[in-house]
Amino acid sequence: MSTDPLPLAEALIRAESVTPAGPEVFDIVERTLAGAGFAVERMSFASEGTTPVENLFATRGSGRHLAFAGHVDVVPPGAVADWTHPPFSAAIDGDTLYGRGAQDMKGAVAAMIAAALDWAAADGPGQISFLITGDEEGVAINGTMPLLEWAAAHTRFDAAIVGEPTARAVLGDTIKIGRRGSLSAAVTVEGKQGHVAYQERAENPVPALLAIGTALNLPLDEGSEHFAPTNLEIVSVDVGNPSWNVIPPRASLRFNVRFNDHWTFPTLQAELTRRIEEAAAGARVSIAWEPFLSDCFLTRDEALVAAVTDAVEQATGVRPEATTGGGTSDARFIKNYCPVVEFGGVGSTMHQVDERTSVTELRTLANAYRAIIAAVLSA
Amino acid sequence: MSTDPLPLAEALIRAESVTPAGPEVFDIVERTLAGAGFAVERMSFASEGTTPVENLFATRGSGRHLAFAGHVDVVPPGAVADWTHPPFSAAIDGDTLYGRGAQDMKGAVAAMIAAALDWAAADGPGQISFLITGDEEGVAINGTMPLLEWAAAHTRFDAAIVGEPTARAVLGDTIKIGRRGSLSAAVTVEGKQGHVAYQERAENPVPALLAIGTALNLPLDEGSEHFAPTNLEIVSVDVGNPSWNVIPPRASLRFNVRFNDHWTFPTLQAELTRRIEEAAAGARVSIAWEPFLSDCFLTRDEALVAAVTDAVEQATGVRPEATTGGGTSDARFIKNYCPVVEFGGVGSTMHQVDERTSVTELRTLANAYRAIIAAVLSA
Repeated sequence: MSTDPLPLAEALIRAESVTPAGPEVFDIVERTLAGAGFAVERMSFASEGTTPVENLFATRGSGRHLAFAGHVDVVPPGAVADWTHPPFSAAIDGDTLYGRGAQDMKGAVAAMIAAALDWAAADGPGQISFLITGDEEGVAINGTMPLLEWAAAHTRFDAAIVGEPTARAVLGDTIKIGRRGSLSAAVTVEGKQGHVAYQERAENPVPALLAIGTALNLPLDEGSEHFAPTNLEIVSVDVGNPSWNVIPPRASLRFNVRFNDHWTFPTLQAELTRRIEEAAAGARVSIAWEPFLSDCFLTRDEALVAAVTDAVEQATGVRPEATTGGGTSDARFIKNYCPVVEFGGVGSTMHQVDERTSVTELRTLANAYRAIIAAVLSA
Repeated sequence: MSTDPLPLAEALIRAESVTPAGPEVFDIVERTLAGAGFAVERMSFASEGTTPVENLFATRGSGRHLAFAGHVDVVPPGAVADWTHPPFSAAIDGDTLYGRGAQDMKGAVAAMIAAALDWAAADGPGQISFLITGDEEGVAINGTMPLLEWAAAHTRFDAAIVGEPTARAVLGDTIKIGRRGSLSAAVTVEGKQGHVAYQERAENPVPALLAIGTALNLPLDEGSEHFAPTNLEIVSVDVGNPSWNVIPPRASLRFNVRFNDHWTFPTLQAELTRRIEEAAAGARVSIAWEPFLSDCFLTRDEALVAAVTDAVEQATGVRPEATTGGGTSDARFIKNYCPVVEFGGVGSTMHQVDERTSVTELRTLANAYRAIIAAVLSA
C-alpha cells in the first residue's frame, strides 16, 4: 500500500509560509523524512542586505543518487476575502484541495516525499536527497544556490528532479529538459535639447530610438530542435519629458531576450549591438547590459530523459513532451551540478485566488514520482 | 533732432520686473507717453487660479490706426554672479548696453516709444496706440488676450507691429508675417500585461507604438510659398515599467506639430489619425488631442508688408526677408483683430546671462520704427 500524499499536503498548506518560509513548515518536512530514516540538516543562509533564509537538506541510502528539489514558501494569498475557503485552511471540497501552495508547490513536495517514504520503507536501491528551500518565490539568493554549494561539498548527484508545475493542460503532458537563456539591456540615445519650433537647432533622440526598437524586434532565429524561437520583448521605453514644446535631450528603452541554443552570450550581444548601432545611424547610443542573466541550457542526458518520460507515461497514461519553454526556475542553478529534469503538476491556479489541486491528480503525481525513483535508481 | 531711446531703455531695465511685471516699470511707460499727449489707461486683469497682471493701453491721434505691441516683464536673471554687470544695473560698456530685457524686449519698447514721441512732437498723421503687457514671459493669460478684448470694445486697429526680436543675424534681416500653427496630442496603445517568458499569453503594446511613432515621423509636406515644411516632433515616449520580466500593459507617446498653410486643424487631425490607426494595425489605440493649440496664420495685407519691408530697409540698409519661422508670439492673438507684422532687434543673448544690445543698433531700431510709422500712417 503506497503512502497517500494528501495528509502531508494538507499539513504543509496549513503551515502558513509566505516567502520567506519560517521554521514551522520545515519542522513538518524534517519530522516526516527523519521518521523514514533520512538524515536531515537544517541550515540558514544569509547574505548582505537580505533576510536569512531557512533551507533543508535530507538524504538516505547510497549508490546512484537522485535529488528532489522544491520549495515550501508560497506567494501571498492576495485578497483573502475573495477566497472560497481560507487560503491556509487546506479545505477539501469533493476531489479538490484548496489552499495557497496546493499547486506551487506544497502539493508536489508532499507527492515527492510520499514516493520517497515508500522507497525508504521498501529499502529501495540507491540514494535519495531532498533540497528544500524557503525563498524560491522571494529574492532566491539565500536558497537553492548556497544549498547546492553546501551539498556539493558533501556529495554528488547523478540526477535531479525539480517539482515545479510543468503540465500545460493535463498531468503528464510535459516535462522540461532545459530553458532558454535570458539577457537584458538598456539602450540610451543622446540627442540635444531644444525648442520644437527651432528643431534645426536641436537633435531629437526619439527617431533613432524608434529605429533601434524596430530593429531589435525583428526575428532573431526560427527556433531549434529543442527550443522555441528566440524572443525579444521591449519592456519599457522612457523619455519622461513633461513638456509639449521641448525636444528631449535623451531617450531610452529596456529589453529582455529569451534565447535558445543558437546563441551564446557573446554571439547574441554582438548581434544585438550590430542591430542597435546600425539603426542608430550615427546617433550617439550607449548599451548597458544587465548583470542578471541566465544561460540557455539543455539536459543532454538522453537516458535520464527517456527514463523520466517512460515513468511519467506509465503513471499518468500520458506520454510527456520534453520542452524548453517558459520562464526560469531553480533548474538553472542545478544544471551546473547534475542533469536535471522538471516535472510537476498542473499550474493553472498558481499565484491566484482559490489556488487548488485535484486530490486524484495529487495521488497520480506521487505515483509518477514513485515510477521515476524506480526508473532512475534501478538504472 | 530725434529722441534717443537709450535713457528710456536704461530706466526700463533698472525697473526690475521679472514676470509678472509690477507697477514701477509701467509708471515709467505711463509718465513718458502721457507727457507726449497720449491718453493712458492702466488695467489689471485676473482669472481664476492665476495672479492678476498689470497692463497698459495708451493712444493718441485719430484716423489710420497703428498699434505697437510689447511687454515690459522679463525672464529671471539666472545666476546673478555670472553676469559681467548686475542684470538690473543697465550698465553701458562702450557701445554695449547690458541688462535683463535689453533685447527681450525693453530695448524695443524704448525704441518704439522714442519713435512715437517724435511722431507726437511733430503732430504726425493718424493714430498710434501701445498695447503693453506684464506677463508675456509668464502664463500669458492675463495680458495681451484680455487687453485686446478690452481695446476692441473701444477702437479698431488698421495694423499692428510686435517688437519681439526677429533678426536672425543682423538688424533688419527679418520680419515675420505669420506663424506656423501648433497642435499636440498623446497617443496610447493598450496591450495586455504578462510575463516575458510567456509572451504568447500577453500583448506587448511597444511594437505598435514604435510603428505609430515611425509613421508620425514621415514628412507631412514640403512647405509652401511662405512657410517651412510642417514639422512633427515626438517629445516623449513613456511606458514606465520598472520590471525586466514583465510585458507592460500600455505605452504612450506625445507629439507636437508645427504646421503650415497646407493644413487646417481638421485636415491635419484626420491625416495624423489615419497614420496612427494604420500603423496600429489592429492594436487598441487612443488619441487625446491637447486643448492648447494655435492656428497657422499669414498676414495677407500686401501693402502693410511692403510698407514695413521698405521702411526697415530704409532705416537699416538691409532688405528684410518676410518669414514665418520660429515659435509663437502674441502676434497669434493680435492677428484676430488686424494685420500684424513682427519686427524687432537681434535676440542672440535673450534669456541668457549677460543679455545685452548694441546702443547703435538700439538707435537704428528706433529709426526703423520711425520709418514704419511714416510709411503706415501716411498710406
